[in-house]
Amino acid sequence: MADSGWPGCAKSLKGVILDMCGVLYDSGEGDGVAIAGSIEAVKKLKTSDLQLRFCTNETQATREKFVAKLRRLGFDISVAEVFSPAPAAVAVLKQRGLRPHLLVYDGVLPEFDSVDKTNPNCVVIADAAEKFSYQNLNEAFRVLIGLEKPALFSLGQGRYYKEMDGLKLDVGVYMKALEYACDLKAEVIGKPSPVFFQSVLTDMGLQPHEAVMIGDDLVNDVGGAQHCGMKGIQVRTGKYRPSDESHPNVTADGTVDNLAQAVDLILNQRGGH
Amino acid sequence: MADSGWPGCAKSLKGVILDMCGVLYDSGEGDGVAIAGSIEAVKKLKTSDLQLRFCTNETQATREKFVAKLRRLGFDISVAEVFSPAPAAVAVLKQRGLRPHLLVYDGVLPEFDSVDKTNPNCVVIADAAEKFSYQNLNEAFRVLIGLEKPALFSLGQGRYYKEMDGLKLDVGVYMKALEYACDLKAEVIGKPSPVFFQSVLTDMGLQPHEAVMIGDDLVNDVGGAQHCGMKGIQVRTGKYRPSDESHPNVTADGTVDNLAQAVDLILNQRGGH
Repeated sequence: MADSGWPGCAKSLKGVILDMCGVLYDSGEGDGVAIAGSIEAVKKLKTSDLQLRFCTNETQATREKFVAKLRRLGFDISVAEVFSPAPAAVAVLKQRGLRPHLLVYDGVLPEFDSVDKTNPNCVVIADAAEKFSYQNLNEAFRVLIGLEKPALFSLGQGRYYKEMDGLKLDVGVYMKALEYACDLKAEVIGKPSPVFFQSVLTDMGLQPHEAVMIGDDLVNDVGGAQHCGMKGIQVRTGKYRPSDESHPNVTADGTVDNLAQAVDLILNQRGGH
Repeated sequence: MADSGWPGCAKSLKGVILDMCGVLYDSGEGDGVAIAGSIEAVKKLKTSDLQLRFCTNETQATREKFVAKLRRLGFDISVAEVFSPAPAAVAVLKQRGLRPHLLVYDGVLPEFDSVDKTNPNCVVIADAAEKFSYQNLNEAFRVLIGLEKPALFSLGQGRYYKEMDGLKLDVGVYMKALEYACDLKAEVIGKPSPVFFQSVLTDMGLQPHEAVMIGDDLVNDVGGAQHCGMKGIQVRTGKYRPSDESHPNVTADGTVDNLAQAVDLILNQRGGH
């Protein structure tokens, strides 16, 4: 009989999805720093019979630049393995014939090169930090309020994140601001959106119960994956907080010290298969 | 038998509360411009046996500067008759021993001169337009998130307002942003808060059913006053829109073309008393 618990369920797994920041590396000055054991853990997964994908809400740079950074840190990762919100947004925009007004980091703009941005009929926002000026937010608002059918896309819905100099407001805060201003509901692209996780599963050709998501964010990684039918494992690195283990709404299928431990547990189970 | 409808109810009225922008005047270049008949209407009320107060969510300047502007336009108004959110906030802060971090227009800062602002234990925001930079909002967020019991006060909760150069995001949008960032609920000071209307009634020494509010904002003026037990009359000036007359949640007790018409109806009823 199949074991549906963790780590017993690893026996029937066919794919692993890894969050990046806080699981593979910690951000900081320059490229940041790899989390102990994570480079080796990725290598082990790559030589296993499991499929591997990376899933991030990173929107400060293009996937190319982002992957180049990870490779400099020592990770064996290629662009095709990485799922991030900007390319997912581009797919949605093209599918629906939408022309975006963009309020995003300059670094991620090239992801939208192939999209028609003239005479915008929707607004796309992503973490933009200092670019979230009153003037820029007001401009996005005026575009939305002037549309017959206003559509707002938010690449992620985080509240805040931590940088070297302290906490910083994330895109979700500005999503809520525009939602209230225009009396509408934004469409979130990225984790924890089920559509986003499903696109990774589709790429692997797997059913949800055949995959596990490993992340440091209990709500967006673990809860989002579980909502999609996958197992969700939390690592005690990155933005993990002890209070996550008694969260009122989300309970991880397993909690491990770090990615290295998670991968060893998975591969040991499979070894005993 | 007392007539509880409009304008019959005017017979038993003892006080009138007037919104200012959009009822007395339209804002614009310089001081803006008085709405036709409104200067005379205020004069008529002042020579009647009715008490008169002004109630505004204006937070761009001190009451002194604001009243000086109205007087330049020709209105017979004194500071003591005007109720605005900043002095109401100061009263709340002192009552509760709170020391605010302020994110407000420079012009309204003097209203807070008497308040201790060292080592802040709450945040007060008001319409601040260009001062709502990412850096300033992030600073307010960091103060809040660092508090054991975070308290956020918002002077009004408007979505947007209109200026010469187009629509501009109002304080409510940034209130929602900080509410989401810190997972808390702000306390609104100003219209439509019942506490705010009650402070005007208390100053007049009247019960809610003895007073009427006249405003151009269906939700904040009319709905707020009604929620407090007063009658609420909407004028078809300022931010009035025809769709207000079929609003799903708020129905004015009466709708009139402008303040002059409202005052004539009230005084005619009383003449026939």
